[in-house]
Amino acid sequence: MGGDEGPATVVAGCDWSARKNPDIQFILHGPEAELTGLVARKRALTGRVEIWDATGVVTMDDKPSQIVRNGKGTSMWSAIEAVRDGTATVAVSCGNTGALMALSMIRLRKLPGVNRPAIAVLYPSSNPQGFNVLLDVGADVKADADDLLRYAMMGMSYARNGLDLPRPRVGLLNVGTEEHKGRTELKEAYELIRDQRDLAGFEFVGFVEGGDISGDICDVIVTDGFTGNVAIKTGEGTASLIGDRLREAFKFSPLSRLASVLAYTSLRRLKKKIDPRRVNGGVFLGLNGTVVKSHGAADATGVSAAIKLAAQLADIKFTDKLAARVAGLPGEESAS
Amino acid sequence: MGGDEGPATVVAGCDWSARKNPDIQFILHGPEAELTGLVARKRALTGRVEIWDATGVVTMDDKPSQIVRNGKGTSMWSAIEAVRDGTATVAVSCGNTGALMALSMIRLRKLPGVNRPAIAVLYPSSNPQGFNVLLDVGADVKADADDLLRYAMMGMSYARNGLDLPRPRVGLLNVGTEEHKGRTELKEAYELIRDQRDLAGFEFVGFVEGGDISGDICDVIVTDGFTGNVAIKTGEGTASLIGDRLREAFKFSPLSRLASVLAYTSLRRLKKKIDPRRVNGGVFLGLNGTVVKSHGAADATGVSAAIKLAAQLADIKFTDKLAARVAGLPGEESAS
Repeated sequence: MGGDEGPATVVAGCDWSARKNPDIQFILHGPEAELTGLVARKRALTGRVEIWDATGVVTMDDKPSQIVRNGKGTSMWSAIEAVRDGTATVAVSCGNTGALMALSMIRLRKLPGVNRPAIAVLYPSSNPQGFNVLLDVGADVKADADDLLRYAMMGMSYARNGLDLPRPRVGLLNVGTEEHKGRTELKEAYELIRDQRDLAGFEFVGFVEGGDISGDICDVIVTDGFTGNVAIKTGEGTASLIGDRLREAFKFSPLSRLASVLAYTSLRRLKKKIDPRRVNGGVFLGLNGTVVKSHGAADATGVSAAIKLAAQLADIKFTDKLAARVAGLPGEESAS
Repeated sequence: MGGDEGPATVVAGCDWSARKNPDIQFILHGPEAELTGLVARKRALTGRVEIWDATGVVTMDDKPSQIVRNGKGTSMWSAIEAVRDGTATVAVSCGNTGALMALSMIRLRKLPGVNRPAIAVLYPSSNPQGFNVLLDVGADVKADADDLLRYAMMGMSYARNGLDLPRPRVGLLNVGTEEHKGRTELKEAYELIRDQRDLAGFEFVGFVEGGDISGDICDVIVTDGFTGNVAIKTGEGTASLIGDRLREAFKFSPLSRLASVLAYTSLRRLKKKIDPRRVNGGVFLGLNGTVVKSHGAADATGVSAAIKLAAQLADIKFTDKLAARVAGLPGEESAS
């Protein structure tokens, strides 16, 4: 209910997913009458949707702490509850990220050994798989060395299970690649991550820089939630500036307008390749349950992409794999 | 001497600048015989170049601390020395950033009231001036609230004098725009910056996000050197990924290849607009003297752009203006 485009877009996204994936069943959370009406218009959803009535809505302006205290009647709360009691395998939401994370932490609880959960996204890259895993992008503004080790393990597990990379290459984000560079917690995290690589079966490429987030020297980029959040938003902003300039360039003269008509298919192909809607979904890692955060402004294609990712993670029992991965890591006492 | 392309490229950049700006005089630092030979081939440089012989070279791999101790015979040391003794008004270098900052701090010393100098860059944006000022992008990995206040004042002064904006709009980089968000030092810096806006004649737009670095809601973006460094490198990497994909898209079919021929002028115009070579130059702020850091891989156009920026800042006595701006700010005792 809390996405920018409202429930009709979410239902349209479900419809799209239902047609492409015959195995997915849906539980929708929100005002029953409204949702029943929307679902009735989509033939592919017949018999595949259960509706849990919830009249409250978490808005984008609500403070996470208020929602944790007073959010019980909201659709977001209801969706997390369905995961908590095992009715749903995974939750998808387009709503307020902070509130969704706060509710998920309180109701689903953190995995043993995890102090700070993380949000991981797929970032377009020049790697063969087309994307790299970047985390944390904003679950918490801080991360110490123990947290960064856990982000590395969780990101590695996500790359292995979500991107089908048997031996992911993990990099730790810094301002230079030399070992002596950067903040103290990064030097500590460097050693902690390096010491796990053989046991956990990943490669550690050491420190990487901002340019490597979209590059091909590693598949997983580990950083704190402040830096990660600034990085993805800077990247999105820069991409959108280039897109605007490109459109202007093609409108400039009759010749360039003709060129843009001829280039139409090529540009559409390009757009599809780097379209954020097609990799829509930040995944919350480190909780007893899987939660996928879709972009607030997602359209039906975006919602459908988030559902596809959620279904894939549910299919492979990703939460269990992740729990095994972070159990028994060093520093667990302080992180419990 | 320490740039990736060697001294011939630097001399070519000087030649380019000399032809466009009749008022610039040059002092070149490096092996005298080699530089004399390079200069002799450029007619525009006749009578406008002095050469200071220096045989040592700071390489990209040298540690800043080593250069501070043992770098006396290097071309970089010599260039900074020329600013220190007043022979040169401003220094330009394509060399090792860390070593250049360390040498500049030791030899030029910090301005009264400045604890951490900063490196500021111009980032392409959708503002009318085409660029925003972003700082710090890597002089230091840390910044406390007092430092961030000084970055705001120095960035504002740079925008006013370098981008001709009489009343720059300053934003403080965070993970959200609500006042309660982010790290403690950011909330403190928010109040410190806000309290200076009337006295110093700038607008404070409050917290901004990564997407605003290339946006139009502010002209100056203030952040710590770790976050700023990751942000510009993420932006550069993303832009370069999009460029590669665009080239692939245009090579895909005979029709798209024809389109790329027709679009040639438009694409060149686009490239010129967002070409980092044309705004090449990070400026070191907070020192007794102006130092411009050109990109290590800069070609002659890039070197010439850095020289142009340096000459403009020298012309308006930027260092004096900056010194006046940071004198007497709150927290000076701790920052002196």
